[in-house]
Amino acid sequence: MKKIAILGSTGSIGIQTLEVAREHKDEIKVVSLVAHSNIDLLEQQIREFMPELVCVYDENKAKQLRENIKDLQVPVETGMDGIIACASLSSADTVVAALVGMIGILPTIEAIKAGKNIALANKETLVTAGHLIMPLCKEKGVKLLPVDSEHSAIFQALNGESKKNIHKIILTASGGPFRGLNISSLKNITPQDALKHPNWSMGNKITIDSATLINKALEVMEAAWLFGVPISQVQVLVHPQSIIHSMVEYLDGSVIAQMGLPDMRLPIQYALFYPDRKEMKLGERLDLTKINQLTFEEADMETFYGLKLGLEAGKLGGSMPTVFNAANEWAVARFLEGKIGFLDIPKLISKAMENHIIITSPSLNEILNTEQETYDFIEGIVDTVR
Amino acid sequence: MKKIAILGSTGSIGIQTLEVAREHKDEIKVVSLVAHSNIDLLEQQIREFMPELVCVYDENKAKQLRENIKDLQVPVETGMDGIIACASLSSADTVVAALVGMIGILPTIEAIKAGKNIALANKETLVTAGHLIMPLCKEKGVKLLPVDSEHSAIFQALNGESKKNIHKIILTASGGPFRGLNISSLKNITPQDALKHPNWSMGNKITIDSATLINKALEVMEAAWLFGVPISQVQVLVHPQSIIHSMVEYLDGSVIAQMGLPDMRLPIQYALFYPDRKEMKLGERLDLTKINQLTFEEADMETFYGLKLGLEAGKLGGSMPTVFNAANEWAVARFLEGKIGFLDIPKLISKAMENHIIITSPSLNEILNTEQETYDFIEGIVDTVR
Repeated sequence: MKKIAILGSTGSIGIQTLEVAREHKDEIKVVSLVAHSNIDLLEQQIREFMPELVCVYDENKAKQLRENIKDLQVPVETGMDGIIACASLSSADTVVAALVGMIGILPTIEAIKAGKNIALANKETLVTAGHLIMPLCKEKGVKLLPVDSEHSAIFQALNGESKKNIHKIILTASGGPFRGLNISSLKNITPQDALKHPNWSMGNKITIDSATLINKALEVMEAAWLFGVPISQVQVLVHPQSIIHSMVEYLDGSVIAQMGLPDMRLPIQYALFYPDRKEMKLGERLDLTKINQLTFEEADMETFYGLKLGLEAGKLGGSMPTVFNAANEWAVARFLEGKIGFLDIPKLISKAMENHIIITSPSLNEILNTEQETYDFIEGIVDTVR
Repeated sequence: MKKIAILGSTGSIGIQTLEVAREHKDEIKVVSLVAHSNIDLLEQQIREFMPELVCVYDENKAKQLRENIKDLQVPVETGMDGIIACASLSSADTVVAALVGMIGILPTIEAIKAGKNIALANKETLVTAGHLIMPLCKEKGVKLLPVDSEHSAIFQALNGESKKNIHKIILTASGGPFRGLNISSLKNITPQDALKHPNWSMGNKITIDSATLINKALEVMEAAWLFGVPISQVQVLVHPQSIIHSMVEYLDGSVIAQMGLPDMRLPIQYALFYPDRKEMKLGERLDLTKINQLTFEEADMETFYGLKLGLEAGKLGGSMPTVFNAANEWAVARFLEGKIGFLDIPKLISKAMENHIIITSPSLNEILNTEQETYDFIEGIVDTVR
């Protein structure tokens, strides 16, 4: 029986993780759930899965949930301490780290310290703190399993192979809804335009990151940490059909690719059961005769220059990926509120990166300070950019 | 240092194996060479690679070669005994089994008995004698490594995975030069038409098998033996660009594919160095941005009904695959001589299969007798078919 803690159970990944858990009831027990504030959905999840412990980050919402589920014996914690309690719960063996944003880092570190395997869906963890996380995983002997479809694909393509034989990692990108457009046609993009992703159903933040291709920059940084290769050895390849989820090219010219229909439940299930595979119970099998064609093109780094900035941030390393990520997070939130334009996102990131003096190997505190400084800096200059 | 014996060194696979050996001189020593009768090319190979022993199957040609290379200290054997001497040479650790036809089976068996790893390029070995070969490899603890691009792809896609997790094997086919045609337009195909393969440069026999899709039937049977799955679990998928060399679909819906530019030297090198991979020194790397598109379609088993017959033969098992293979071999030879038409190939195979009474688990002698009986049978009926 796998015993899992889900950090971010009311988000897109959390919901899909619970779908997988529901289909494998005999093999997966959900021991704790963490949500930010969506207590209505969380309550349904609690009533269905009866975890040992839950946490609602928002204190007032936590109080209200306690009221709403007082017929149950499930304690409701709150705040960062509550998240950590859920993440390091003694009965959990695997933590699904699916919180959005920097808030996910500390609970993940605590889970690793407690010896839990990590199914990682939080991008910020490796992007900003890969230099802290990777050695810690090694020290504690825990498995770090990617949940992202691209990283899961790379992981599967590397399975059974020696890392020294990697020539390069080829990370595929759908190209997002604005593939093929030039920069001038992106000027008046609205949040509604950007939220229409052609292939994947995901949360709002990541859908915008997918439209700017900034998600690919974050994924390249993540891949570099996860698989121990330099940023320059990871190539972004646009593949609009999202059937090949990523590939590894070996020294000898052989390329191993992982494919499937776009469905996050596949990588989630793989991460939960690795190294075993379980019968697909949800979703549909890939039938290549029904796929018209698979095509590939280079990423347009001039139009989507957020991607270019991100690769630069990754190469610079240290605290720069934190600046890139924080500036993007801030800008995407403002874009979704309709306060800045689509092209202001990379513009603001660029300003923030120019302003930053790199800390080579930042501590978690320095990472969190860098994040706050980045927010403050952009806050102060945003009016000059628009 | 890998020490290899090459059975069939003057054929297409043998020549390409020597190209790989040439590029990896420091790591590969060629200890023996076997050829049928092309002593001019064999002599060049001997002078370059200086093996310990060679064999020319044709006795007169062997005599002539002894004359031609009497300045060297390289003994020249002949006949089946000579092939077996080369295949079981004590200094060899890997035998590249690339003889064409049933003649390849006995030397391969002897090499396995002598504890040599086998890089297998001879299709007949597993198609007709898989039930003898597979248990023998297990008993002797030798590795059977496929050299065929499709089987190498499947092998690579299975690397690190558990066989019990296979949902199906997807064996790709270019579709050959006559893909998309209907049966009436195949009637007047000449050997010259059929020898033009769109993607691969191969020997004549296999190029015709590729035009009839009969090679795919043989490959399905081989795959079933190599990977321990029933014929019904191997799907033939037409993929005209020959970039994806084959795939494995797992229980959970994940599909692992192996890709590369069509170049036999890649699977040859992989088989020789497995589990290591070596830098590509020959050929070109795959650049997917230069590939227009990858497409897929179902195999047309009505037009190419040799494929359908082959899958039936595989399912029937026992001595039936031998009949299928022998009938095809006989018919292809006559087709290449211009004596029968392209569509007579499956017609003759069908007649031979109808006539045969299956031996459930034939010995090597029974296999060879079945082959001869099949030749004799077709010889007797060929005029009634045309």
